[in-house]
Amino acid sequence: MSRRRQIYEGKAKILYEGPEPGTLIQYFKDDATAFNAAKKGTINGKGVINNRISEHVFTRLAHIGIPTHFIRRLNMREQLVRQVEIIPLEVVVRNVAAGSISKRLGIEEGEPLPHTLIEYYLKSDELNDPMVAEEHIACFNWAGPEEMQDIAAMAIRINDFMCGMFAAIGIRLVDFKLEFGRIFDGDYSRVILADEISPDNCRLWDFETNEKLDKDRFRRDMGGEQEAYQEVARRLGLLQDDDNGPGEVVDMNAMRSRMRPTPGKPKK
Amino acid sequence: MSRRRQIYEGKAKILYEGPEPGTLIQYFKDDATAFNAAKKGTINGKGVINNRISEHVFTRLAHIGIPTHFIRRLNMREQLVRQVEIIPLEVVVRNVAAGSISKRLGIEEGEPLPHTLIEYYLKSDELNDPMVAEEHIACFNWAGPEEMQDIAAMAIRINDFMCGMFAAIGIRLVDFKLEFGRIFDGDYSRVILADEISPDNCRLWDFETNEKLDKDRFRRDMGGEQEAYQEVARRLGLLQDDDNGPGEVVDMNAMRSRMRPTPGKPKK
Repeated sequence: MSRRRQIYEGKAKILYEGPEPGTLIQYFKDDATAFNAAKKGTINGKGVINNRISEHVFTRLAHIGIPTHFIRRLNMREQLVRQVEIIPLEVVVRNVAAGSISKRLGIEEGEPLPHTLIEYYLKSDELNDPMVAEEHIACFNWAGPEEMQDIAAMAIRINDFMCGMFAAIGIRLVDFKLEFGRIFDGDYSRVILADEISPDNCRLWDFETNEKLDKDRFRRDMGGEQEAYQEVARRLGLLQDDDNGPGEVVDMNAMRSRMRPTPGKPKK
Repeated sequence: MSRRRQIYEGKAKILYEGPEPGTLIQYFKDDATAFNAAKKGTINGKGVINNRISEHVFTRLAHIGIPTHFIRRLNMREQLVRQVEIIPLEVVVRNVAAGSISKRLGIEEGEPLPHTLIEYYLKSDELNDPMVAEEHIACFNWAGPEEMQDIAAMAIRINDFMCGMFAAIGIRLVDFKLEFGRIFDGDYSRVILADEISPDNCRLWDFETNEKLDKDRFRRDMGGEQEAYQEVARRLGLLQDDDNGPGEVVDMNAMRSRMRPTPGKPKK
């Protein structure tokens, strides 16, 4: 891989220079971190599954008109994406109280919020990703007012779509994190969805059992994270489900051979 | 004082039932707390000075059309105020980075902000007054959208007025905290300024020396808090200044005798 220039290494992904100007290759690692990397580990095969789930979700979001950085999946762990200027905000959409908001505002985990809530956090490992308000974003010009309008509107549409998609497979979308970036066209720029959508940055609970099918299994030392990620992929129809019952440990090599091909490629 | 019914005791003030329905008596204590009452102490004479400074500021804010709960000062430590339904938010207006925002966003204390910033904190000792965004305020209905518009507009006007007032006496208004409450008129309610404005909830720095003239002297164990509060009162013309040079320790009993009478009473 030394022939490719590495642009950036994050906690769960590496970005390499892409084959054409304005493109990058997004490589999905198995590394898992939590609590701003205070906790580190590996979820075997996570990168392969997240690459596939994120491709699936981004492709379908493109179909409803959400502009994204996704171009196409290249292989098991890589996808070709558009290069963006990342907006330094984590956009969190919450339907049900869980995690930091439960602690911060004293709301029991699992309590549905009165209505969907968007929160913004400054992307800064050094500062531990502090929550910020639109007033801070405007004051420090991390994003412009039109960009924030676009981001909020897209976040709500993405939430509606994903609530529907997960509800159809018996999963409650508790919350998730999005990142956005700018692409430039002459003097103009527009905001598109970047990063990934996967069990790494969504809270996904089984509708019937409330079983967690996401990275909280890793964060909270619950075990079974590999099976949980596979279960999400299986329910989304991304694994052939003849022999992938929940809780069964699936050998990643065997899984790879059962992975379905990408159904279609989105337009650039 | 047992003849009066106590309505509420806070960290720095006590509220008693007022002489008429819809009124309260606000009593200013000398108690000082910091870090959500993790640190406790007394600033001798603080209640007397804050009662006088807050009267002064609220009276002048009423003159520029800001509706407030202040009716009139009753004596050295008490003022008559309108009873409000308090909105459970601390509204912080910042002109210069200091205190929690410096730590949270990694901005050096003393750095002017790109523009004035309004922050909201949920009033909750139990949760340690967490910062919230307008999205949380809307989601949990702590205040309505029209109320938030009124609060933001008043906060900006109050900041403009106070920046001018303090600049005129050689003091930089770094930041301050406001609280608002609702008063009801039949089916309608409106939002008015409540609580107090004093060196307890403003950061006030001498323009020339950057000397702190506020509660940070107590929070940070700098000493001289009593003199600092007196200095603010003196510069505002609330003490006769023939013998109150900065840094001079003033006996509170002597100070009381030099206090000027209230110049005028605002309309209800």
